[in-house]
Amino acid sequence: MVTREFIPPRRLLLGPGPSQVHPRVLRAMSAPVIGHLDPAFLAMMNDVQSLLRNTFQTGNRFTIAISGTGSAGMEAAIVNAVEPGETVLVGVNGIFGTRLVEVTERCGGKAIRLEAPWGSAIDPQAVEQVLRRSGPVKAIAMVQAETSTGCWQPLEAIAQLAKQHDALLIVDAVTSLGGIPVDVDAAGIDICYSATQKCLSCPPGLAPFTISERALAAVTRRRTRCQSWYLDMKLVAEYWTEGTRTYHHTAPISMLYALREALRLVEEEGLPARFARHHLNSNALLTGLLELGLPPLAQPGQRLPMLNCVTVPDVIPEAEVRARLLNRYGIEIGGGLGPLKGKVWRIGLMGESSTEAHVLRLLNALEELFIEGGWLTTPGLAVGAASRIYSRANP
Amino acid sequence: MVTREFIPPRRLLLGPGPSQVHPRVLRAMSAPVIGHLDPAFLAMMNDVQSLLRNTFQTGNRFTIAISGTGSAGMEAAIVNAVEPGETVLVGVNGIFGTRLVEVTERCGGKAIRLEAPWGSAIDPQAVEQVLRRSGPVKAIAMVQAETSTGCWQPLEAIAQLAKQHDALLIVDAVTSLGGIPVDVDAAGIDICYSATQKCLSCPPGLAPFTISERALAAVTRRRTRCQSWYLDMKLVAEYWTEGTRTYHHTAPISMLYALREALRLVEEEGLPARFARHHLNSNALLTGLLELGLPPLAQPGQRLPMLNCVTVPDVIPEAEVRARLLNRYGIEIGGGLGPLKGKVWRIGLMGESSTEAHVLRLLNALEELFIEGGWLTTPGLAVGAASRIYSRANP
Repeated sequence: MVTREFIPPRRLLLGPGPSQVHPRVLRAMSAPVIGHLDPAFLAMMNDVQSLLRNTFQTGNRFTIAISGTGSAGMEAAIVNAVEPGETVLVGVNGIFGTRLVEVTERCGGKAIRLEAPWGSAIDPQAVEQVLRRSGPVKAIAMVQAETSTGCWQPLEAIAQLAKQHDALLIVDAVTSLGGIPVDVDAAGIDICYSATQKCLSCPPGLAPFTISERALAAVTRRRTRCQSWYLDMKLVAEYWTEGTRTYHHTAPISMLYALREALRLVEEEGLPARFARHHLNSNALLTGLLELGLPPLAQPGQRLPMLNCVTVPDVIPEAEVRARLLNRYGIEIGGGLGPLKGKVWRIGLMGESSTEAHVLRLLNALEELFIEGGWLTTPGLAVGAASRIYSRANP
Repeated sequence: MVTREFIPPRRLLLGPGPSQVHPRVLRAMSAPVIGHLDPAFLAMMNDVQSLLRNTFQTGNRFTIAISGTGSAGMEAAIVNAVEPGETVLVGVNGIFGTRLVEVTERCGGKAIRLEAPWGSAIDPQAVEQVLRRSGPVKAIAMVQAETSTGCWQPLEAIAQLAKQHDALLIVDAVTSLGGIPVDVDAAGIDICYSATQKCLSCPPGLAPFTISERALAAVTRRRTRCQSWYLDMKLVAEYWTEGTRTYHHTAPISMLYALREALRLVEEEGLPARFARHHLNSNALLTGLLELGLPPLAQPGQRLPMLNCVTVPDVIPEAEVRARLLNRYGIEIGGGLGPLKGKVWRIGLMGESSTEAHVLRLLNALEELFIEGGWLTTPGLAVGAASRIYSRANP
């Protein structure tokens, strides 16, 4: 029995990631592989670092792509910053805050869970209260863009608190980087990690990662060795630093080609234009979805433009509709995770996925399915409402 | 300042990995990305598992590709099998045995180093002696193909000892899989990991990984949680198992497309033909290199056909010659690591890199450089000797 060639079906990716990948990125990725110690490859890594610094808005020397997905970036942040017995204050208002707690505990850290309802941001005053009562805290870990709820966590006030209490600020920017400002230096973030398959619109497989000099000094002062050899940033740094370039592990060469090209696309568009695009398309989508009776889960002013999490009324069999959307229209959207399973849809408008054409195509498909299901009588309302947003933006 | 497109230089990869990648693999990798929970993608993962089982020669249900490079595979093997305080007997005769010791110690394990000279295999009798004297040993870890020396480690007798002493046998097959028999089931290997960029001729980024039912039961019986969340095989298994498919982390989709196509090429060639090809080309290369005064480092009968590590005489400025080979001929070969730095060349004939044309091209280039350097007077001897091996094999 011989295995046949795999031809992926045609899909429009409007879920919580991966997002659509630009053909230029696919082409760059398929260039011939060269060696991970080839001078031409090392020069290419310099470009990736420089482009990542621009995207993170940081001058951090140590800005790299970790050889694993976003979750490896999270683990790298925690296992390098936290030694056994040290405390991390974790904001928990969704799946990824919960995961930060688990990763902290697995590396021998003590996690203080500061919870907020799923869909609400963590209140800086609550952070301050915990910090006043708790002993010394090594780090505060916050999810800027909670992919499970669509909630946008403001960071400025918490960054101030971190500085006052001599704690490192670790920020999960998996879903935010390239879609909303991350501004590592201006916001005062010490360690920030992301993923390639969200607003950078690159295939999944790498975790962009940056550490401030302050955090790097703390990592260097550790009394214990990092529990992970693969994710030990002191060792990884020796490969990514010009002048040393000591072999650590074989870099994922083709993925780095892809990331470089994806970051070039970010550079060409410019961050302000990119953020405005994400904002506009989310606004149009949410306006259309309201016409279908699907309100956003996150609080007003705390909604992520790239991850639109909306509540689905009980009357609608959400999994069935999602399956029809995939099988009949080729459109992927996401369901809920954990306690939100069966209750929400997570619609991603990330990077290349965030376009007017995609918003209108999705709304039109949903209108057809909702009319078929008897949950909507008048066609055209959702598409019309979204179109008016676009007309107003581009008169 | 705008970053320009990256066009990799033309290279022939004859180093210790990455190896040449077949155009079919590059094309498969550049197919449009689909979602990691898309039914079409999950079906593709089933194919990857089934093709990996064939390549590992195992029936192990738990046979997957880890979302990281070969070193992540090593770390996954150790952190899942070993609990803090437990002992691992590690065969150390090169860089990768040394790394196994370090990974073991970082996860709280106790490593017993059983050393052999670099280039010599570990003697099963020495293993037995250690086992007789030591307390209980949780695992024996061996590097089947030591990429730093080109030494081929026989496993059968050690596998017997592992069974007798109720220890798990962990095998590093990073460089061997697809080039020499790994035979997980027949050899009695409990945990085996590899990498994609060696004899599978796929870009780097994934670690093929397989666990026997016996080892899986031991992992499930752990008293402590695995220190790594990212590499916790109990969690990863829930995503890779049909029926559960619980989201753990976003799979590196494009890399899995690539691996599937690379494994299809292995399937088409067939393992016996593939092993014979690796053997023949290594034989021809080593015969030619002897004519240049470059003898193999590893002992006779213990030489890996895909990683030809040869001693370079002191008179030859090895780094300079390697640089000329790269810059003038576009051919990459590897230098020595650790104590072998400056003393050996590591010439990889892995997967797509292992062809008659590549062997002759390299030998011809070396002859030219050696004549230029004054270390050789008569041209054609190396190429001629290799050619005679090919004529004899294909009369």
